[in-house]
Amino acid sequence: MGSTRVRIAIDAMGGDNAPAEIVAGALRAQEELEAEVLLVGDPQQVEAALKHHGHASPIEVVPSEGTIEMEEEPLPALRRKPKASINVAMDLVKRGRADAVVSAGHSGAAMAAALLRLGRLSGIERPAIGAVLPTMIAGKPVLILDVGANVDCRPTFLEQFALMGTIYSQYVLGNTDPKVGLLNIGEEPNKGNELAIQTHQLLQENPAIPFIGNAEGRDVLSGHFDVIVCDGFAGNVLLKFAEAVGEVALQILREELPRGLHGKAGVTLLRPNLKRIKQRMDHAEHGGGLLLGVAGVCIISHGSSQSPTIFNAARLAKDAIDNQVLDRIRSSYEKPAVSS
Amino acid sequence: MGSTRVRIAIDAMGGDNAPAEIVAGALRAQEELEAEVLLVGDPQQVEAALKHHGHASPIEVVPSEGTIEMEEEPLPALRRKPKASINVAMDLVKRGRADAVVSAGHSGAAMAAALLRLGRLSGIERPAIGAVLPTMIAGKPVLILDVGANVDCRPTFLEQFALMGTIYSQYVLGNTDPKVGLLNIGEEPNKGNELAIQTHQLLQENPAIPFIGNAEGRDVLSGHFDVIVCDGFAGNVLLKFAEAVGEVALQILREELPRGLHGKAGVTLLRPNLKRIKQRMDHAEHGGGLLLGVAGVCIISHGSSQSPTIFNAARLAKDAIDNQVLDRIRSSYEKPAVSS
Repeated sequence: MGSTRVRIAIDAMGGDNAPAEIVAGALRAQEELEAEVLLVGDPQQVEAALKHHGHASPIEVVPSEGTIEMEEEPLPALRRKPKASINVAMDLVKRGRADAVVSAGHSGAAMAAALLRLGRLSGIERPAIGAVLPTMIAGKPVLILDVGANVDCRPTFLEQFALMGTIYSQYVLGNTDPKVGLLNIGEEPNKGNELAIQTHQLLQENPAIPFIGNAEGRDVLSGHFDVIVCDGFAGNVLLKFAEAVGEVALQILREELPRGLHGKAGVTLLRPNLKRIKQRMDHAEHGGGLLLGVAGVCIISHGSSQSPTIFNAARLAKDAIDNQVLDRIRSSYEKPAVSS
Repeated sequence: MGSTRVRIAIDAMGGDNAPAEIVAGALRAQEELEAEVLLVGDPQQVEAALKHHGHASPIEVVPSEGTIEMEEEPLPALRRKPKASINVAMDLVKRGRADAVVSAGHSGAAMAAALLRLGRLSGIERPAIGAVLPTMIAGKPVLILDVGANVDCRPTFLEQFALMGTIYSQYVLGNTDPKVGLLNIGEEPNKGNELAIQTHQLLQENPAIPFIGNAEGRDVLSGHFDVIVCDGFAGNVLLKFAEAVGEVALQILREELPRGLHGKAGVTLLRPNLKRIKQRMDHAEHGGGLLLGVAGVCIISHGSSQSPTIFNAARLAKDAIDNQVLDRIRSSYEKPAVSS
């Protein structure tokens, strides 16, 4: 890593609320984490946002030109715009000027840029985006991957996701004994689509993966699994549904609690408790997904990210670097496990 | 249909709580719906359950031998046990002695038995299981199909699901202007896996389907879509997750609301409102999924069904019969829509 402080390149132009919210989150990250932030973006816009927010310590701005728009096909757009913010951010890691990238822009473009500029880790056919969700057991989150990088998968991809997820769960989330599940529609090994049936067998045969069986939709938030692997289509649907459903529950509370004779009084008494409930159901805490399997630490945040999410994404990047996730994935493939 | 009263064959041996809970739900259905219930099962066990619950009006018991167990492969098991309750129930419909089947047993076996004994509706390659979920808009549920019958799908299957779902939404759920969505990981037509991309085009080109575009995970419960089509793998994961997540939200409420100085007092004041919240988040209201595309009305309920679910399943069966869902699907294929 060279310098003692972790250096994080943040794509200031990516996301619905760029650059204002991104810059605000980046400033907080530089102040509160032991990290050096590099803001990648249009210098005028970024400087204006910096001026608006005000900041005590100096922050480096790395100029870029343009961004990849949501409706653009990633690969041609990345080639057509070599100086787009996400390309420039990835180049900073490639050239050793940064240790990680955070972006809330086009997630497909972020993944493609990481692949093109940084390449894959050896042994990994496809990188995956991992997302962390809270479970029914407080303090015991579950890592789900892939949540959108690979919509069509082969069984070996999911096997690799399981291995990377195990390492991430162990060394970043601090699980000494992570348990891996395969997202499926039944508990039995013969249940599921072609992909699930074949993956089940691979996971069972790989001694480096602490596989405990299929996880049905109802098991995802049970806390019995620390890592759940799936293709990026099912994972993305699940993640976005999970994020929305917390909102639905909160809306039902807002509508129903204040009703009737005693409603208002009851709500007043419970105000602090309701605030805590909102926090537990709210998913903004998570920062984003780690792109696992590329030769660099990349955090992909929601397009709708506001400053707290960007701050949390930067913290996630720092955790991944501090815990040497990349090296651990690399070395797990250098010493191939003995097959059973 | 013959008789004026709808006749519903209920698989008394199917599900975790068979026969006691199934029989209890069946008795209530016979009493409260204008329906004649035929209880299919082991005569001794069913009679014992009937005796236990007690009942005013007579109820017919149709004897069967054995059931299909959860770990059995449907087709060989159905062939090995021709007198299994699900086979006998389907035969009642085939021979015109019943108008519908309700089962909380092995769902794959129920579908296979329906296919073997009743066959498909012409024009339908694969039947689908449809499930109804409440949305953020009160009184505006969404129909999701397939939720588990077909784990590997072709685009034409999903096109047929969309057409059947439209008819169901219109004539059973009473939507004069149903809106159909395709479950996907982005709004744009080019997003998604191979299946989604090809299905998008078919849905757009079919003038009989009121397709309004892709539905992401976050849109499922928004109330903007009345029907959402997907393969049975993604649909099953989503459905089981949705059912569990209501439980998670309720548990958070139970844990957090009574805390602190004013917690207990607040909860006491809000008791009636909390009861209403529980009802809105609880999915037991729904009875089960309709198996769409077979030549008979079949409701597949959860394995964990208790008596209220069986009652609601019978009501769902009656609604489907009263509103001639099968004839409407048939006639939509007799007069093929003009392609645009």
